[in-house]
Amino acid sequence: MPQGQPSFIPDDGLTTRQRRYRPLLIVHTGDGKGKSTAAFGLALRGWNQGWRIAVFQFVKSAKWRVGEQTAFDTLAAVHRAQGVGGPIEWHKMGSGWSWSRKPGTEADHAAAAAEGWAEIKRRLAEQRHDLYILDEFTYPITWGWVDVNDVVSTLRERPGRQHVVITGRRAHPALLDAADLVTEMVKVRHPMDSGQKGQRGIEW
Amino acid sequence: MPQGQPSFIPDDGLTTRQRRYRPLLIVHTGDGKGKSTAAFGLALRGWNQGWRIAVFQFVKSAKWRVGEQTAFDTLAAVHRAQGVGGPIEWHKMGSGWSWSRKPGTEADHAAAAAEGWAEIKRRLAEQRHDLYILDEFTYPITWGWVDVNDVVSTLRERPGRQHVVITGRRAHPALLDAADLVTEMVKVRHPMDSGQKGQRGIEW
Repeated sequence: MPQGQPSFIPDDGLTTRQRRYRPLLIVHTGDGKGKSTAAFGLALRGWNQGWRIAVFQFVKSAKWRVGEQTAFDTLAAVHRAQGVGGPIEWHKMGSGWSWSRKPGTEADHAAAAAEGWAEIKRRLAEQRHDLYILDEFTYPITWGWVDVNDVVSTLRERPGRQHVVITGRRAHPALLDAADLVTEMVKVRHPMDSGQKGQRGIEW
Repeated sequence: MPQGQPSFIPDDGLTTRQRRYRPLLIVHTGDGKGKSTAAFGLALRGWNQGWRIAVFQFVKSAKWRVGEQTAFDTLAAVHRAQGVGGPIEWHKMGSGWSWSRKPGTEADHAAAAAEGWAEIKRRLAEQRHDLYILDEFTYPITWGWVDVNDVVSTLRERPGRQHVVITGRRAHPALLDAADLVTEMVKVRHPMDSGQKGQRGIEW
């Protein structure tokens, strides 16, 4: 697929080079596994290109994604020490966003999610990162904590060349419509179907 | 999903703990993106658990996966220097397998693929790794370069607790049948549909 040729040349006024390096809005949705892991796998490529990467986790549990976070913290430390790869920031909503002075108010996830999105908007305007991973961001949209129209118009109008990956089930149709690349992860078979619980190394 | 409860308790003679830590055969298939990136994202979790990881790339192009390979080489170096995480080996078929003394014979991909699988069989018997990623391994199976019955029986009978992830389109039905976890990555929308070529950081 990477080396495939596009099926036609669009009449969009862009040069091939401009079109090639157009920033992407990518959505990983569906009930299957691999939505977040594929986003983190993609971030390894960006890291290798020296991209400035930021992960925003819109999830509650501190246990989740701990493997990825540790690996990315390690890669970020290598970047700082040796200058290889790019910088990586990892922000999670669980216990209050790291940039916030307020202690985490577990009771008010809606406010925390809105605060997270407001920060992402500021960073997009500043062109602070090259790749944003908004992990499990479909849920605050679904629950109305973040306005989907604001998300779509902000992403459509973002300046420069900032790639954005959004993961989570039941992505809003307006979000799918705005995306350049949408993959649905479909569950064909899962160990829980045969009575197996999640295990470390696989699920977190 | 990670913290979900299984829907029933199977009558398989295993304790909950045995069932929880049962080794998994995972297949990522389908025409969509994210099959390999999800496997590499999963490997970050295993690395953090100190697992011995080995990637076997059954692809030709040296350009592919270069971002992931560099990131994993970096994590492997951190493991060697500081003892954190686990060891990672990365083997690719493109220019001859790294364990082979023979120079790469680009002309004979079938023999190279068979040689790769023979090595994986030896390692499974020795319980050499905790996680094997057989990237794009569905193709040599589809093309008959590797016998699917041998693959399935070897994987079914592998000793110990060795997890295996196989990626690629058009996974053989016998392989799907043997798998514990199957996710199909379905293409909903792709930038090449609107005339965009692949770009670095995203595709490799």
